[in-house]
Amino acid sequence: MSAEYFAPFETVRYEGPETANDLAYRWYDKDRVVMGKRMEDHLRFAVCMWHTFCWPGSDVFGAGTFSRPWHDGPNDAVRARAKREAALAFVEKLDLPFYCFHDVDVMADADDVASFRSSFAQAVDHLEELQGRTGRKLLWGTANLFSHPRYMAGAATNPDPEVYAWAAMQVRDCLEATHRLGGANYVLWGGREGYDTILNTEIGIEQANFGRFLNLVVEHKHRIGFTGTILIEPKPHEPTKHQYDFDTQTVYAFLKRFGLENEVKVNIEANHATLSGHTFEHEIAMARALGILGSIDANRGDPQNGWDTDQFPNSVEETTLALIEVLRAGGLGNGGFNFDAKVRRQSVDAVDLFHGHIGGVDTIARSLLRAAAILEDGRLEAFRAERYAGWQGDLGRKIHAPETSLADIADLAIQSNHAPEARSGRQEWCENYIARF
Amino acid sequence: MSAEYFAPFETVRYEGPETANDLAYRWYDKDRVVMGKRMEDHLRFAVCMWHTFCWPGSDVFGAGTFSRPWHDGPNDAVRARAKREAALAFVEKLDLPFYCFHDVDVMADADDVASFRSSFAQAVDHLEELQGRTGRKLLWGTANLFSHPRYMAGAATNPDPEVYAWAAMQVRDCLEATHRLGGANYVLWGGREGYDTILNTEIGIEQANFGRFLNLVVEHKHRIGFTGTILIEPKPHEPTKHQYDFDTQTVYAFLKRFGLENEVKVNIEANHATLSGHTFEHEIAMARALGILGSIDANRGDPQNGWDTDQFPNSVEETTLALIEVLRAGGLGNGGFNFDAKVRRQSVDAVDLFHGHIGGVDTIARSLLRAAAILEDGRLEAFRAERYAGWQGDLGRKIHAPETSLADIADLAIQSNHAPEARSGRQEWCENYIARF
Amino acid sequence: MSAEYFAPFETVRYEGPETANDLAYRWYDKDRVVMGKRMEDHLRFAVCMWHTFCWPGSDVFGAGTFSRPWHDGPNDAVRARAKREAALAFVEKLDLPFYCFHDVDVMADADDVASFRSSFAQAVDHLEELQGRTGRKLLWGTANLFSHPRYMAGAATNPDPEVYAWAAMQVRDCLEATHRLGGANYVLWGGREGYDTILNTEIGIEQANFGRFLNLVVEHKHRIGFTGTILIEPKPHEPTKHQYDFDTQTVYAFLKRFGLENEVKVNIEANHATLSGHTFEHEIAMARALGILGSIDANRGDPQNGWDTDQFPNSVEETTLALIEVLRAGGLGNGGFNFDAKVRRQSVDAVDLFHGHIGGVDTIARSLLRAAAILEDGRLEAFRAERYAGWQGDLGRKIHAPETSLADIADLAIQSNHAPEARSGRQEWCENYIARF
Amino acid sequence: MSAEYFAPFETVRYEGPETANDLAYRWYDKDRVVMGKRMEDHLRFAVCMWHTFCWPGSDVFGAGTFSRPWHDGPNDAVRARAKREAALAFVEKLDLPFYCFHDVDVMADADDVASFRSSFAQAVDHLEELQGRTGRKLLWGTANLFSHPRYMAGAATNPDPEVYAWAAMQVRDCLEATHRLGGANYVLWGGREGYDTILNTEIGIEQANFGRFLNLVVEHKHRIGFTGTILIEPKPHEPTKHQYDFDTQTVYAFLKRFGLENEVKVNIEANHATLSGHTFEHEIAMARALGILGSIDANRGDPQNGWDTDQFPNSVEETTLALIEVLRAGGLGNGGFNFDAKVRRQSVDAVDLFHGHIGGVDTIARSLLRAAAILEDGRLEAFRAERYAGWQGDLGRKIHAPETSLADIADLAIQSNHAPEARSGRQEWCENYIARF
Repeated sequence: MSAEYFAPFETVRYEGPETANDLAYRWYDKDRVVMGKRMEDHLRFAVCMWHTFCWPGSDVFGAGTFSRPWHDGPNDAVRARAKREAALAFVEKLDLPFYCFHDVDVMADADDVASFRSSFAQAVDHLEELQGRTGRKLLWGTANLFSHPRYMAGAATNPDPEVYAWAAMQVRDCLEATHRLGGANYVLWGGREGYDTILNTEIGIEQANFGRFLNLVVEHKHRIGFTGTILIEPKPHEPTKHQYDFDTQTVYAFLKRFGLENEVKVNIEANHATLSGHTFEHEIAMARALGILGSIDANRGDPQNGWDTDQFPNSVEETTLALIEVLRAGGLGNGGFNFDAKVRRQSVDAVDLFHGHIGGVDTIARSLLRAAAILEDGRLEAFRAERYAGWQGDLGRKIHAPETSLADIADLAIQSNHAPEARSGRQEWCENYIARF
Repeated sequence: MSAEYFAPFETVRYEGPETANDLAYRWYDKDRVVMGKRMEDHLRFAVCMWHTFCWPGSDVFGAGTFSRPWHDGPNDAVRARAKREAALAFVEKLDLPFYCFHDVDVMADADDVASFRSSFAQAVDHLEELQGRTGRKLLWGTANLFSHPRYMAGAATNPDPEVYAWAAMQVRDCLEATHRLGGANYVLWGGREGYDTILNTEIGIEQANFGRFLNLVVEHKHRIGFTGTILIEPKPHEPTKHQYDFDTQTVYAFLKRFGLENEVKVNIEANHATLSGHTFEHEIAMARALGILGSIDANRGDPQNGWDTDQFPNSVEETTLALIEVLRAGGLGNGGFNFDAKVRRQSVDAVDLFHGHIGGVDTIARSLLRAAAILEDGRLEAFRAERYAGWQGDLGRKIHAPETSLADIADLAIQSNHAPEARSGRQEWCENYIARF
Repeated sequence: MSAEYFAPFETVRYEGPETANDLAYRWYDKDRVVMGKRMEDHLRFAVCMWHTFCWPGSDVFGAGTFSRPWHDGPNDAVRARAKREAALAFVEKLDLPFYCFHDVDVMADADDVASFRSSFAQAVDHLEELQGRTGRKLLWGTANLFSHPRYMAGAATNPDPEVYAWAAMQVRDCLEATHRLGGANYVLWGGREGYDTILNTEIGIEQANFGRFLNLVVEHKHRIGFTGTILIEPKPHEPTKHQYDFDTQTVYAFLKRFGLENEVKVNIEANHATLSGHTFEHEIAMARALGILGSIDANRGDPQNGWDTDQFPNSVEETTLALIEVLRAGGLGNGGFNFDAKVRRQSVDAVDLFHGHIGGVDTIARSLLRAAAILEDGRLEAFRAERYAGWQGDLGRKIHAPETSLADIADLAIQSNHAPEARSGRQEWCENYIARF
Repeated sequence: MSAEYFAPFETVRYEGPETANDLAYRWYDKDRVVMGKRMEDHLRFAVCMWHTFCWPGSDVFGAGTFSRPWHDGPNDAVRARAKREAALAFVEKLDLPFYCFHDVDVMADADDVASFRSSFAQAVDHLEELQGRTGRKLLWGTANLFSHPRYMAGAATNPDPEVYAWAAMQVRDCLEATHRLGGANYVLWGGREGYDTILNTEIGIEQANFGRFLNLVVEHKHRIGFTGTILIEPKPHEPTKHQYDFDTQTVYAFLKRFGLENEVKVNIEANHATLSGHTFEHEIAMARALGILGSIDANRGDPQNGWDTDQFPNSVEETTLALIEVLRAGGLGNGGFNFDAKVRRQSVDAVDLFHGHIGGVDTIARSLLRAAAILEDGRLEAFRAERYAGWQGDLGRKIHAPETSLADIADLAIQSNHAPEARSGRQEWCENYIARF
């Protein structure tokens, strides 16, 4: 039922900025070398299963608007298989290297533990075969610990240890499946790890249980020899009122507290960044400063709407700033850019899926080119270095010398008794400079 | 010039909820014992110098509207003295135990290092005398490292080490003054410790410098024998676009990173909590869970306005939830409730200062009584305990046993193969229950 | 299947603030006379069908958690009938006078026009019978013009006139049904009357079509002799990026533009008010000032979350301010307080529906008592009157005299040449005063 | 004292995108013809007095950081003159055609009515002379009715009619001065026309007084023969909690209510648009749809900060969408793009003023070029026209025919009994298409 869905479409190719073809890449030229690396290797694009193949176009106020062939009827083994085939076929049509999934995205619905496990196992077998056939790879797998009613009060933070055990079961299976499928990373998004009301919540207990869970997962990763990266995906809220993994620094606090800051990194989502009161580039820069930059969920929110809109990235201006931080960090390593993005509910046609992904790919590719040009030009980097040059001088070194005390530094200020010079921060120049590229 | 300013007013006394007197306490009965402690000792109220005595009623769009006697002319030694006298007299009229200040709030303006230090030293002498005369005490001191143009790009995170040295000088003097004046705490609010644009900012350098600074301050505290608590006050932004001390968890991350989580606590401000996307009670509960609850800046924001409005608390409903967390934490210890709040710009009369503070005091006092009643009644606490009871059971203990692995827990789920029971979170009942008190 | 669902529960009765019964009213004493009117007649409470009987406890990230008997299987005629019975039985158990519905809430699913109409007609027959049997009444009906995929791009603002015609069909039938069932009002909520992206939208065409639609509805109302009020419910966005009925003043602009300001009023929802950047009381006060206050959708949002949470009202403090405005307006007339509120997704039990509604009823009832006490005490009203007294004086009257020009007034200012006196706005006193009740 | 301030700088010229000169225009080529009109005539750029010449670089948390020569000392006649000279000299250096002012921006401080008027009159004489000498023109004047303490509770909405009379005096003088100086428009920004708390506010009285005021102003305009446009500038809040001119539709409601919709237009500010929950392009499109598009205050806010940051526009992506709406409206007529924008507080040098304005000018100029290219290409316009084509067809015309009733339309839907076709909204294609230019 799915084989023909994308049949009318050609594989998407790079044709350059001037092409008249709506279904070509204008900027993403996968073999083009940028700062010593192919674009494909820089960006490691992935298509996500959930938004693009599972979501029917519903929202809180309305039913699904899409009628993909596999949406027509219950999510049984036949339809789940069709969905997997369609997904890998689509990634191939886009000529992108990776995909990502939650366990429940790829399998038929199942009610009890045994059928859940066997349904997932079947799906993994099939995915392995499809990966081989299409040459596509898994950027990361994850277990969905938020959609089933059992997780309404959390998974690793659920008041009920039986739910916790269910979650452990899903994560073990999914981590092992990810390992078997050659996944580059394994993600945990704690969509229900938080609270709806603080009135009924013991934050202390919930966080201790959550920390324990993460330690168990890391231990299991090592036990099975999985060498991919474990990633936590920060989000401030929604569906919960408050989610424990609020933002990158909060995740860092959590990792430090439970001794995991060298084991776990973050998967930063643009829309989650803005919902938490930060820019996308801030979250990346902060993760870089803390040494926990892992991977990216590429999308965007709507600055006027206070929920996760998961739109395809379309701002080269904003994404350039993110790419500058990624390049400064030396790239994403194991990570990549996963399109955790969905076409709008009115975009009901197969071609809209192409428009969404092509636009997203080109936005990021063009941003990579701009970011590289900015770094290679070097004027911004030089200005920044100069701005902090004092810290390489006598006073800067003195301040950081282990034997120096607060009193020593205070006395230096008193002795010099002169007003520090006012130096312009040149924000407008920086902005103009960036705009030039 | 200040002596008569509050002369027309009687000392504010407790007269009970039914009094017709606008200038009496209806709920704050300082000697009333609540859960084994006098209200005054629970709440440790403080009046702040800056909003109540320094701020002239200006805002971004308009000039000062107040004409307190000490606002009339330059902030010289005479007016600074008048301001100090007025402040302590006001705290006495309110019959509250504490006040708080920034160095620059209490002193005459000064341009160079030497005159700055001597002006502050004079102020401290006078404050010591006034404390003795009025019986008022210092809840905390702090150095203002944000108002002077030299700090436009930060203090401890300034690109220029000379500014850092100026800041070290101010903090040393102010910490020592706080020690000498018997202050119970010393606060650092990093109003400019952040950035206006990430384009010109090296987060890595700035945070390393900031961590170094905090370590130097803690070391100095011990050197001089100050036994009060060092507190950081989180705020997400304003005046900066992004402030490094975003919220309680971010501060915890910072403390952990620089090895200070046992040395420094947080001073939580209600309005800063809501600006960072959290409730006031969330920040307190989180600080409690992390063991870093220090003190409170009592005020409130406006849920429709996106800046720090610093209004006096007037919601018993919201403040009750905060007080529940404070009581669960066993109280504030060294900390207290400082009114980091200002009367509105149209509230131009001396009596408005009384209305603001009396309203704030009564809001918090009444909240304390409600919170205590809720905890003493015990039904909410019992419901919460019951909700997490599973963690005291076999499965809960098994999960936390050091020898248990993820696979062990997963296997338990598989063996039991039953669906965890759906238990209501009873949010509406919790809310109704709280409303009853 | 529904008859027994609420059988275990007693009818909810007033038992006073001191009762230990969780399932009694503490403040809502329906026959108590407040400012000359019974509480029931002031408040005219309604239970809504959609949240309380149709919604299965799903959210964007998870499936339904409720298992009401009528949720189990497709929404066919049997289950729709059960739902209607359960609904009216529940309203009776709560001893509230009214309910509200969308056409699709009360009927079985239907695909084409004919079956849609007959399914709805059956439902209306049954509702008429149930109203007679239970003594419950209809506060308002409304047609759901947003859930079906056909409305994904709007109903009256859809680019496709055929969709517009479908909407006209639904509204005619639903308006006539509301008339037949003795409904007191008819509501239009334009959930999809707006846009997802301005890029594909002609605001001018869409608003002209929308204005035409509203005129047609008003004309039809008169034609059929319906004497209830037509109400528009403002909301700023969600599900759309931007909704045309943003807030009360925007609706007023729309009504004025299309000549309907004397025909249509607003149904103000608390959560929509706050999402649009206003307080609940602001929207009511503004509607009062513009003469278009119609009815209330009682609920609340979460100040930290940017979407429509539709929680039950639980803040007496906030609701009191709303009730003051309602009382100043002379009451709601035809309108009432409809609980457009849902229990949380974790509140899975039948008893939670009671807790939600009882808490909401008591919050509003207590607020009514406080608001009445404040108005009867009269000090706030007197202060407000005094504040504007100048407009009754010579200068105030002169300014409004038709023959006065700008130059005349300017000349008066020049002649008097004196500085207007600074008078305190007494905001803190106002807040303290309100808190006393 | 001001003559030399900008002496080191050359007049800014167009040098094309490839220039290495930081102080040249890359995109603003004033004589280039775009869609039949010179860029200068399309954009009609203005420099504002307040941010660029009066504001000292202060914010709520800190003192001024700039040390322009005219900031050094009280704002007396000498310094006010210097400021005016510097301002016109700067506009000339930028080679832009217009400037804008508030009365108090251009004059020396004054306390009583008489000295206020004479100080302003002197300033106007001097401005007239400077306009002649430099060839610069006035885009609009406005009276500052918000900074002086007398306006703390509003101007036209002040409870005190004496304040209202002061405002009338200022507006008369400023309107006449604007007329005399050949100003193209006259603006009213109601910065304090709103409330700090609804508790002490009679919205009904305040709006009636405000409506009266606006009618008086319009009448005076006609009396003196001023043919420029009267403009209201919407803003939702700040400094007030709520401002009456919340957004474009609210202003339209106000104008309709007071019979002024053909007399007054809106001056839309980008940052005010986003603070009110709208995009910049939305506000322009809405003003276009309502026929009240007047002029633009060009700036931008910060999506993460909830106050008016008034930064220079730097997003070509966002501004392009605004320019598309301006071009669709047939241009701004009398209006123009006024830079109501300020360099950041750390941008302390004269050169930063150039960077800010050059960046803003180029952002808008480049956006004009892109918008024109999009409209000339025509694919987006064609797609939009096609989307609404049904309204030109039989059903569309029938719906709007005066004799058609709701029942007629409903019957058509019943007869046709077919499901409207699902047509994709093509949002992703629209976004990709725009990105191409």
